[in-house]
Amino acid sequence: MPRIAIDAMGGDHGLSVTLPAALAVLPRHPDLHLVLVGDAARIEAALVRELSSGSPLRQRLSVQHASEVVEMHDPVAVALRNKKDSSMRVALNMVKAGDVAACVSAGNTGALMAVSRFVLKTLPGIERPAIVTALPTQEGHVHMLDLGANVDCEPLHLEQFALMGSIVAEVLDDNPRPRVALLNIGEEEIKGNEVIKQTHAVLQERQQALHMNYIGYVEGDGVFRGDADVVVCDGFVGNVALKTTEGVARLMAHMLKQQIGRTWYTKILALFALPIFLGLRKRMDPGRYNGASLVGLNGIVVKSHGGADVPSFAAAIDVAVKAVGQNIPAIVRERLQALI
Amino acid sequence: MPRIAIDAMGGDHGLSVTLPAALAVLPRHPDLHLVLVGDAARIEAALVRELSSGSPLRQRLSVQHASEVVEMHDPVAVALRNKKDSSMRVALNMVKAGDVAACVSAGNTGALMAVSRFVLKTLPGIERPAIVTALPTQEGHVHMLDLGANVDCEPLHLEQFALMGSIVAEVLDDNPRPRVALLNIGEEEIKGNEVIKQTHAVLQERQQALHMNYIGYVEGDGVFRGDADVVVCDGFVGNVALKTTEGVARLMAHMLKQQIGRTWYTKILALFALPIFLGLRKRMDPGRYNGASLVGLNGIVVKSHGGADVPSFAAAIDVAVKAVGQNIPAIVRERLQALI
Repeated sequence: MPRIAIDAMGGDHGLSVTLPAALAVLPRHPDLHLVLVGDAARIEAALVRELSSGSPLRQRLSVQHASEVVEMHDPVAVALRNKKDSSMRVALNMVKAGDVAACVSAGNTGALMAVSRFVLKTLPGIERPAIVTALPTQEGHVHMLDLGANVDCEPLHLEQFALMGSIVAEVLDDNPRPRVALLNIGEEEIKGNEVIKQTHAVLQERQQALHMNYIGYVEGDGVFRGDADVVVCDGFVGNVALKTTEGVARLMAHMLKQQIGRTWYTKILALFALPIFLGLRKRMDPGRYNGASLVGLNGIVVKSHGGADVPSFAAAIDVAVKAVGQNIPAIVRERLQALI
Repeated sequence: MPRIAIDAMGGDHGLSVTLPAALAVLPRHPDLHLVLVGDAARIEAALVRELSSGSPLRQRLSVQHASEVVEMHDPVAVALRNKKDSSMRVALNMVKAGDVAACVSAGNTGALMAVSRFVLKTLPGIERPAIVTALPTQEGHVHMLDLGANVDCEPLHLEQFALMGSIVAEVLDDNPRPRVALLNIGEEEIKGNEVIKQTHAVLQERQQALHMNYIGYVEGDGVFRGDADVVVCDGFVGNVALKTTEGVARLMAHMLKQQIGRTWYTKILALFALPIFLGLRKRMDPGRYNGASLVGLNGIVVKSHGGADVPSFAAAIDVAVKAVGQNIPAIVRERLQALI
């Protein structure tokens, strides 16, 4: 029976999103137990409001008190040093102690990354954890990292991201030789900045030693064409690319709506094609892809979009449930030990 | 009667795209004269093949010989020092000499940027030119720069891009106070890398002196929501964002096609909604947005996507025709003089 801690106070909306999401997820996983971490009085009150008395779901929820909250604008130092009883920190402590198998938070990325690293420590051989998620492509999906945990990266960090991404793709997709690529602005070797060029040289040289299938550079459009199974970049570029993806998807949905609403004639035509539009909307919905894993830590931490709504935060909890089953940290640790 | 030089040999496809595109554009602009720059024998032979003898279009085309071609993989140094008679260089020389009002090239970005800067020089007060284009948003469009000319940028460069972008938006959109934003990975001041933070401080301090309406940070999703009129970033991040946009647009089109092709039922439904799909495809087509301007130079240079097809390269020539009418370089120069 997997137990997962939810940072119930984190994110832009806190309890008003995390609690309904937890309640939505429980029926999907009959064995799951969730621990709601945060202001116990507020959580208990919300549970009374949201759950009918005697609901069997109540047995699969517990509440763990934490007196503080890491706000979305809190600097990393505040989260680390001043808020030692934050819902984020307490949830991570439970992972560390083995009370739960994973933690899900919509709290601010910098803080989640720093506190996770402080509490759980990185795996031996890994300097910095990275945020990784699967994005849809024309061929299936691609694992992209880092998506915002590390703003400035050295070649060594990117090399470690490449290795971790390769292992993640291998395990999750059952793919013995995932194609690992470096995100760049041109496929030619002359382009790119210094860090990218140096990383490229390192990966070309060390790919055999690392048992990695490094295929060179990929551009932003190639990511979505399915040119690689793993795409590596620094957290600044990765986060811009991720948010751009969301923005473009929303723009397309908006344009489609406008296109349909243009005249009464197009509105009627759209009714006929409703099943197509609904199917497309489902596939295009950025919320569906919410829930990114922090890899490189001694434990499973899933980061949700700060502004996630109920279905998206529920999707992030689903990611954590799946991750518990896969136990990536143990596999990455094992592989690293074999390499070092 | 505007005269525009076309780097006829540039890009992935060279003459096979540039010549048909030139022929497609001429009927749209009755006063336009195009100068095809490149291997004169090959261009003349292609003209004989593509144009019926006695076609009136022939009068509005001239050929300027250039014996060399900057290849897509040529390093900047080769383009600058070894290929002094390249079609790119000769076309830019014609801009410099005043023989033509603008130049369009699908040649490699680094080379086009370096040769343009060498031949035309930057405007007084501008250290580096930037690539700018208008991207669609939910509200209309946004001018984004730099899109790939400058891989590593200092705060001073980003400040100059902000200023040029603001002037471009003001002139092109007749917008007296365009909202200028800096692309970042979080709206909070604590996020972002050092260059971004420093640029933010400089722009906050100098926006009044520069007559600029700086509104702070914007994230990748905000760009397409229409949160700003001008978005500033370095060329690496900007190029990744641009290519990501193209990639996501193509992915959506692909998903829509799959959604339609799923069953015979959805195929029939799609027939009913065809006008909607065609309208959407037209608005989503990345080729429609081809043609980005190099700003900050003493002259008008339009960069086309290297892999552009005939309609996209034609769109880039259209951008140049429009730019000649607006004469942005003269306006930017005038504004800079007033500021310095």
